[in-house]
Amino acid sequence: MIMLFFMDQEKSAETEEDSFAEVVTLGQDNPLRLDSGEELGPFDAAYKCWGKLNYDKSNVVLVCHALTGDHYVRGINPITGKRGWWENMIGPGRPVDTDHYYVLAINVLGSCAGTTGPSSINPETGKPYGLDFPVITVGDMVRAQAMLLDYLGIERLFSVIGGSMGGMQVLQWAADFPDRVRTAIAIATTWRHSAQNIAFHEVGRQAIMADANWNHGRYLDQETRPHAGLAVARMAAHITYMSESGLTSRFGRNLQDREKLAFGFDADFQIESYLRHQGISFVDRFDANSYLYITRAMDYYDLSADHDGVLAKAFQGTKTRFCIVSFTSDWLYPTVESRHIVRSLNAVGARVSFADIDADKGHDSFLLEGDDLNDVVRGFLGSESEAMGGALP
Amino acid sequence: MIMLFFMDQEKSAETEEDSFAEVVTLGQDNPLRLDSGEELGPFDAAYKCWGKLNYDKSNVVLVCHALTGDHYVRGINPITGKRGWWENMIGPGRPVDTDHYYVLAINVLGSCAGTTGPSSINPETGKPYGLDFPVITVGDMVRAQAMLLDYLGIERLFSVIGGSMGGMQVLQWAADFPDRVRTAIAIATTWRHSAQNIAFHEVGRQAIMADANWNHGRYLDQETRPHAGLAVARMAAHITYMSESGLTSRFGRNLQDREKLAFGFDADFQIESYLRHQGISFVDRFDANSYLYITRAMDYYDLSADHDGVLAKAFQGTKTRFCIVSFTSDWLYPTVESRHIVRSLNAVGARVSFADIDADKGHDSFLLEGDDLNDVVRGFLGSESEAMGGALP
Repeated sequence: MIMLFFMDQEKSAETEEDSFAEVVTLGQDNPLRLDSGEELGPFDAAYKCWGKLNYDKSNVVLVCHALTGDHYVRGINPITGKRGWWENMIGPGRPVDTDHYYVLAINVLGSCAGTTGPSSINPETGKPYGLDFPVITVGDMVRAQAMLLDYLGIERLFSVIGGSMGGMQVLQWAADFPDRVRTAIAIATTWRHSAQNIAFHEVGRQAIMADANWNHGRYLDQETRPHAGLAVARMAAHITYMSESGLTSRFGRNLQDREKLAFGFDADFQIESYLRHQGISFVDRFDANSYLYITRAMDYYDLSADHDGVLAKAFQGTKTRFCIVSFTSDWLYPTVESRHIVRSLNAVGARVSFADIDADKGHDSFLLEGDDLNDVVRGFLGSESEAMGGALP
Repeated sequence: MIMLFFMDQEKSAETEEDSFAEVVTLGQDNPLRLDSGEELGPFDAAYKCWGKLNYDKSNVVLVCHALTGDHYVRGINPITGKRGWWENMIGPGRPVDTDHYYVLAINVLGSCAGTTGPSSINPETGKPYGLDFPVITVGDMVRAQAMLLDYLGIERLFSVIGGSMGGMQVLQWAADFPDRVRTAIAIATTWRHSAQNIAFHEVGRQAIMADANWNHGRYLDQETRPHAGLAVARMAAHITYMSESGLTSRFGRNLQDREKLAFGFDADFQIESYLRHQGISFVDRFDANSYLYITRAMDYYDLSADHDGVLAKAFQGTKTRFCIVSFTSDWLYPTVESRHIVRSLNAVGARVSFADIDADKGHDSFLLEGDDLNDVVRGFLGSESEAMGGALP
């Protein structure tokens, strides 16, 4: 069901710093049918926009965020008080140029920054869902996003872009809604979670569930929070976001605020202090149950599974143009996995650009990398914009 | 101080299955001076022997165990009820042939299988040490072993062999006691813990200390055990022991006892079930505080640090003959680190053999690898035995 929605052009023409962040309720009449077979509705979808929608709505770029990301890609994030997570990629004059494109970012289903997730109130009980929230998939996230686009009256995306789990959504968009995706940019991602990927996530989930304050997921009803377990989960995951060489060059065996080893269990080494900080600062901005649900969705992700185990079949007949980007030091979703995506696209004659960027920062390169990634995205979007005859504003 | 000890030849001639396991008390008169500056004594050292000591005690091979290992390298381990951890390497007809060599394995200081560690009774309080146990180093472990050799009247080792932390002890032995080590076999190890190594250990320690049942290390005095935290620590570490390709070929995305995804948080995937089993079975055999202390010792390990940051200087003038072994899929202590050890030994003109074994099982290859590793060790020991004119029995 498509609900048309007249965009307020005044609002969307505001600068990106004070552009609106909205929450809309979807699925009231027609709930979202989940991959599990359950139905979810009504549910909220939180999103944020930058730039100006053009007259035929042909300049929309959807930004998909990663596991712990949100829709605050630019400007001040009201939850953290920090700058958005992709300001070097998106904004006026940036590769995804908000002077040309109308950029839309949506908090994923299951998350905790405005879109419905396990910390939201279950309308049937009046209490937070907790583990009563249905287990969701990347496919469910994408279908929820499509419902929001329907609501906004946006039929087709000029591009969909994302890194890590954002890249999974990009590929899912292209596979499930080929007619709605003109171009797709999947960065530092994979087409299915490997055994090692699942293993690291399972450690994180077990750390959360081992925390006595988790209370079988009902901590929000009580005065407890599983902060210790969630911090450990974040620490374990954070190691996988960085490369061994990057860690060595940045931290090595440097000591933290001391001249020599302290022979105790405080943070002697800078890497320990850094990791502890990553864990502690994470728990203030993220919900433990959301961490369970979203890691589960990522572990369930296998785009080939619905296509006889052959990834290429997911893209049969596609007219979407693809840009696949990997980083040489990313061992979470290594280059070989991006190459498999590229080969699968080649196998069905899809148009695809591929860049394996020489970078030292591991998986996090998609957030931290500078000119090389920017040049790839800018060039890819620009060439497609030209192919449209410069029709974009 | 050297205390001579007359070996009971009758006992040592028994078969390996019922050979004696002993615990002796050391450092009663002269305590062990630790790297921290503290002193430890008296302390117990648990060890086990196989084979027959020859007349001039020139056939002793010391086996050094890894983080969670012990001195039960062969036969039934009375703690676990399982077979010893290195039966394919050590025994009659095996590469370290107990028909020729007198094999000695000692539980390391800080561990929990008989040698004094944080779970032992502190003679000053009559209660378990807990965090009152001093923080120890790999150097301390080796000096404690040297005290046991003194006690046993063994002046010089025909060989010292070990993998992982066992390999660290091997290198430490060669550096600190060059005249007592004829040959040294260091497998799947490093000369210093990297930032990534420290990071993974820190996650494990934080998981243990986050467990409410840890009680600041005083859990043995109470009715609690930090099993959940220790299991998470083990799970995180276990991932680092296996290679990505090994995990994929062994588990892939195979489901555990089910036909399709269950859309819940039980172990859907075999890798999840396997990891959970690794965690749960570990807590029955290992002490959480020992895990803290031994990981700390490994993180503190940097053999170059005491030698102006130059590893080669640790081996200046050495007459020890070295065998360094790495495995191609070991990403915990990758081949490049073994190559650095080899180059450092070359720099001081040491005799060194190096084998980088093509293996799929990651770091755990040192326990699991078959013929290739066995051939390397058998050949290395055999050539040294021949160089002695076949003087060994």
